Amino acid sequence: MSRIDGRSSSQLRPVKITKNYVKHPAGSCLYESGDTKVLCTASIENTVPPFLKNTETGWVTAEYSMLPGSCASRVKRDKTSGRTLEIQRLIGRSLRSVVDLSQLGEVTIKIDCDVIQADGGTRTASITGGFIALALALSKMKKHGLINTIPLSDYVAAISVGISANELVLDLNYAEDSKADMDMNVVMVGKGKYVEVQGTAEGSPYSKKQMDDLLKLASAGIKELVDIQKKTLKGIEL
Amino acid sequence: MSRIDGRSSSQLRPVKITKNYVKHPAGSCLYESGDTKVLCTASIENTVPPFLKNTETGWVTAEYSMLPGSCASRVKRDKTSGRTLEIQRLIGRSLRSVVDLSQLGEVTIKIDCDVIQADGGTRTASITGGFIALALALSKMKKHGLINTIPLSDYVAAISVGISANELVLDLNYAEDSKADMDMNVVMVGKGKYVEVQGTAEGSPYSKKQMDDLLKLASAGIKELVDIQKKTLKGIEL
Amino acid sequence: MSRIDGRSSSQLRPVKITKNYVKHPAGSCLYESGDTKVLCTASIENTVPPFLKNTETGWVTAEYSMLPGSCASRVKRDKTSGRTLEIQRLIGRSLRSVVDLSQLGEVTIKIDCDVIQADGGTRTASITGGFIALALALSKMKKHGLINTIPLSDYVAAISVGISANELVLDLNYAEDSKADMDMNVVMVGKGKYVEVQGTAEGSPYSKKQMDDLLKLASAGIKELVDIQKKTLKGIEL
Amino acid sequence: MSRIDGRSSSQLRPVKITKNYVKHPAGSCLYESGDTKVLCTASIENTVPPFLKNTETGWVTAEYSMLPGSCASRVKRDKTSGRTLEIQRLIGRSLRSVVDLSQLGEVTIKIDCDVIQADGGTRTASITGGFIALALALSKMKKHGLINTIPLSDYVAAISVGISANELVLDLNYAEDSKADMDMNVVMVGKGKYVEVQGTAEGSPYSKKQMDDLLKLASAGIKELVDIQKKTLKGIEL
Amino acid sequence: MSRIDGRSSSQLRPVKITKNYVKHPAGSCLYESGDTKVLCTASIENTVPPFLKNTETGWVTAEYSMLPGSCASRVKRDKTSGRTLEIQRLIGRSLRSVVDLSQLGEVTIKIDCDVIQADGGTRTASITGGFIALALALSKMKKHGLINTIPLSDYVAAISVGISANELVLDLNYAEDSKADMDMNVVMVGKGKYVEVQGTAEGSPYSKKQMDDLLKLASAGIKELVDIQKKTLKGIEL
Amino acid sequence: MSRIDGRSSSQLRPVKITKNYVKHPAGSCLYESGDTKVLCTASIENTVPPFLKNTETGWVTAEYSMLPGSCASRVKRDKTSGRTLEIQRLIGRSLRSVVDLSQLGEVTIKIDCDVIQADGGTRTASITGGFIALALALSKMKKHGLINTIPLSDYVAAISVGISANELVLDLNYAEDSKADMDMNVVMVGKGKYVEVQGTAEGSPYSKKQMDDLLKLASAGIKELVDIQKKTLKGIEL
Repeated sequence: MSRIDGRSSSQLRPVKITKNYVKHPAGSCLYESGDTKVLCTASIENTVPPFLKNTETGWVTAEYSMLPGSCASRVKRDKTSGRTLEIQRLIGRSLRSVVDLSQLGEVTIKIDCDVIQADGGTRTASITGGFIALALALSKMKKHGLINTIPLSDYVAAISVGISANELVLDLNYAEDSKADMDMNVVMVGKGKYVEVQGTAEGSPYSKKQMDDLLKLASAGIKELVDIQKKTLKGIEL
Repeated sequence: MSRIDGRSSSQLRPVKITKNYVKHPAGSCLYESGDTKVLCTASIENTVPPFLKNTETGWVTAEYSMLPGSCASRVKRDKTSGRTLEIQRLIGRSLRSVVDLSQLGEVTIKIDCDVIQADGGTRTASITGGFIALALALSKMKKHGLINTIPLSDYVAAISVGISANELVLDLNYAEDSKADMDMNVVMVGKGKYVEVQGTAEGSPYSKKQMDDLLKLASAGIKELVDIQKKTLKGIEL
Repeated sequence: MSRIDGRSSSQLRPVKITKNYVKHPAGSCLYESGDTKVLCTASIENTVPPFLKNTETGWVTAEYSMLPGSCASRVKRDKTSGRTLEIQRLIGRSLRSVVDLSQLGEVTIKIDCDVIQADGGTRTASITGGFIALALALSKMKKHGLINTIPLSDYVAAISVGISANELVLDLNYAEDSKADMDMNVVMVGKGKYVEVQGTAEGSPYSKKQMDDLLKLASAGIKELVDIQKKTLKGIEL
Repeated sequence: MSRIDGRSSSQLRPVKITKNYVKHPAGSCLYESGDTKVLCTASIENTVPPFLKNTETGWVTAEYSMLPGSCASRVKRDKTSGRTLEIQRLIGRSLRSVVDLSQLGEVTIKIDCDVIQADGGTRTASITGGFIALALALSKMKKHGLINTIPLSDYVAAISVGISANELVLDLNYAEDSKADMDMNVVMVGKGKYVEVQGTAEGSPYSKKQMDDLLKLASAGIKELVDIQKKTLKGIEL
Repeated sequence: MSRIDGRSSSQLRPVKITKNYVKHPAGSCLYESGDTKVLCTASIENTVPPFLKNTETGWVTAEYSMLPGSCASRVKRDKTSGRTLEIQRLIGRSLRSVVDLSQLGEVTIKIDCDVIQADGGTRTASITGGFIALALALSKMKKHGLINTIPLSDYVAAISVGISANELVLDLNYAEDSKADMDMNVVMVGKGKYVEVQGTAEGSPYSKKQMDDLLKLASAGIKELVDIQKKTLKGIEL
Repeated sequence: MSRIDGRSSSQLRPVKITKNYVKHPAGSCLYESGDTKVLCTASIENTVPPFLKNTETGWVTAEYSMLPGSCASRVKRDKTSGRTLEIQRLIGRSLRSVVDLSQLGEVTIKIDCDVIQADGGTRTASITGGFIALALALSKMKKHGLINTIPLSDYVAAISVGISANELVLDLNYAEDSKADMDMNVVMVGKGKYVEVQGTAEGSPYSKKQMDDLLKLASAGIKELVDIQKKTLKGIEL
């Protein structure tokens, strides 16, 4: 059975990554997945959180926000909603999972993910695109001699899967997501292990079998995304 | 290999539930799991969130907070941290998964989970204990003729599992949790399906095999907790 | 004429003090006076307010809060109400009146008073119970060699008195307090002098004669409370 | 023994009241007591707090603030300090004690007390001057036919007393107040009864004898202030 | 003498307007002037500010914000800075000057101006681009029959002029602006009259002659911008 | 045609300046222009904003506020409105334009402008009166040997002009301002050059001719104000 936008159940939306979309930050990209567009920028700040003071260890953290015009009804400018905080904590944790913070020096890399247009999957787009901005910023740090090697242990990418209209589908758009019985956000590294799995039943509870099938779907999707990341970052040796 | 507190890897900490611990709210309990103590109260308010106005549908939501003296270092009174918001959203979603909101009438049941003493697992204790407070409040509503039947489709309980010191363990206490490589919070209904799975790698990513083993451990633990809930609520027909 | 709960006009409600109710803070107690239950904890922090920096002098301060389920109608979590600030300033001043701050070193002892269940007299319970938590914390500081002697000059306790239904009564519960024409909170030290007197006419103004009679009532009640404090702290030489 | 400014221990500072100091509010005065200057204005608003909706009852409330240039060191603009909230609650309660709110209709009279210059006693000046602004506003309401009679049962005024340099003194200025061992704010009605007594030991506790002597001193001072209020409001029949 | 980027003193930077850049809002454009890029969106909300309730009159207002990665050093997310509020008030006033609000009905058109990349002149870009988003939204309202005619009396556009390195220049980029002795933001309608003039001496005060010369420069620049607006909106009859 | 209050179109309201109106701040005045009354105080603080740390340069900044009773309808205490921030930024910029900050040392002079009574022109009164408070504070600093010369390059004053009822008028009072088609605030130094010009069309746009005529009117008015400033500060050599 084909989906609203004609995709098969295991098909990703078209992904487009524009590197260095804005000129000021150390790294940036415009990440587009279908109609979802997220601007990811990576800024380097010469401070670390209090618990890292004098440890010669760095930090990677994220902020996530939706522009007012990004949704069907205008989004109020407000960064303290629970959903926002939950998403930016997820992005931060996911990116830190592949960074060797002890090699950064006492700097914080702040990843800003600003949703220009939303059509489902903005948090997973933020992780996948945020990784590109992060890698570009690290590459620039290396070029400027601030670090000797790029302290990334692997690629990291994310995708959503879910059960919508009784079908297990990959990469839900907004229309699918809003009718989904359950959805799961999966974050994996390039080598195929899990960094984060968050599965939530919106309607009725789900079985172990359903969970297994969804994880398989997610795993294949993330493999494709990591390939795209590799092409995008060609020439930068992680 | 036995654990810090002598438990086997698949053993829960002793659970104690004191029903109606405080007299004013519609339902309440003190939920103790080892040294973790959470006061759960359920209050009924005659309002609903804007999106439910004039729908004859009710709402269940939660607030979570740690008392200043609940931890080894004093906790500042502050409900807007990302962690707090994330936890109270999880509690609310979990409890709503077993409530037929359309039978509540336009009321909100607010579940307050206040951590008196913390020793790991406060969010899962809040869900398991919050369900007791909720069921007691619904029972009182029925007694007062506000509802005809108790609109619960099932029991719901939660537990943490994780990989600590290379061992897969159930129901981590604080000492285990702070050294864990990954931990997973699992919420399930009495009939054995999943409501929520949140698995986070703190250190290195985890494999599908590890995830499967942990989910099995969690499933057995939650079965025990639901049995305790059933005994506690004996006489109240869900 | 006997009162709602059968007490004589000069009779306290039964008092129960559970020392070390929670394990993490330096000192703690659950203070119960009839149905009023307040959890008092004392935490030691290695900072002092700016005006005490580099003076080798310490500080004692308090925070007061009502748990959401502590009252007949749910209490919103909000620490900035005028009433709350007024109460915590009163608790802090009262406890400081018996502490020789110059012997503490540059530490702050923060007394947290969290009302688990409210039935009138929560601010006076916080002072009387807060003193126990404070004394226990100082005793632990001495045991750990942080101070040489326990820098307390006296005991301090508090009680309410008021005119309710034309009768002068000691230790008003909520039902009495809400109908009172005037009520007075009195804080005294063990040796019988006043630390704080706050008398407020809710209805019509009160005479000097009424004030004198109420102060006598309060004085007798506080004497009883100090005796209970002494028994509770037996073995700790102030 | 004479005081810093040459007054006897039972002597008030010179009081000057400028009625209708500003033109817009319903009532206003500049209240000066020595170097302490407080601008008191009374504004009428056509709303009442939620608990009075549809009760045909009015409300009187107060806001207190110190202008940045009113003190020796600049005061930050900030209305949420505990001290500020405590003072404005005291002013509001004191003024309400002489108003028959049921005769006001559903309006709120907001008394704003802005300290232009501070030299001790600003809260008692706010009460004594606030009463003038309130009476003038009520008089204007009567003139405009909004009320039939001025619903005041009595005058109300306030003064501080204290023990400074071992002497019991009336109406402490800033220099005296900052060295006082204890001070007491007393609010009384014209007929000589108490509305509020707040006595606080700053140093050592105080005896019943000291309290009695201070209350006598306060009573005489307030009698003088009420006489000044009567002269100021001559022509307005309360 | 030619400028940093080779322009003559009276030359605008290249302007590029991408209409309907995002799909959800009623109107939108990406406005680019050299390296300055502002996303302008116009959302229609079915509420009006309190002072317009029941007047059958609408409102146009603006919010302005810089994305964190838009500047050389990361911009903190914070909408309450004085500069931000000043700019969004200016945008709102400027756009309202050409709208007949009485023909809108009781709706608010909210113009959001989010700076994607900043290189000087973001506030004037927001006005010129905001007008495009507004006109597109009004055009859509007319198409949907919500209004009968597009209630715009004229075009409105804005530009900066200033004295930088002793030369009077049009349309300052960031490098010029940061060294300018004075700069002036000018808002004009298509017919050539002024809506707003804001001239600020950053260094030494300026003469009437300088002001006149700058206004002439601005006037010519705005004429060009209005021509570009006309081309962009071709087919929409104002 | 004569104006509401009988003035000619080019006539200022009567100005009265009471120097040292309050005793604590380094400099102060009560500035009255007709019924508009603003209390201006200048306080010296031993800190500078972060960007001036270790530069041996000082700062001058302003805060503006309206007292609750200053207007026809009560003003809520709230310093973060856009209008307030805009005004205090204007006052600060205007005063800094005549101060050689490099001669101040690392201190901040904070000018507080509190509107006691408002009748139009409060922002320009704040600038003209704020200059007096600033000059008095600098004079005191010189007297105390903190600076060698008074680092003022000129006087600075401000006035409003506007088109009200089709007439070009100087120094609009509230009644004129609220009916004005456009108004302009002009800040000039004693030597006759502009520091700031802000002209805003409230109704229809204005022509260059109108602007020129208004600037001429403003210029004459400011000349008069500077003469009054000179008389007020007689004996202080700038």
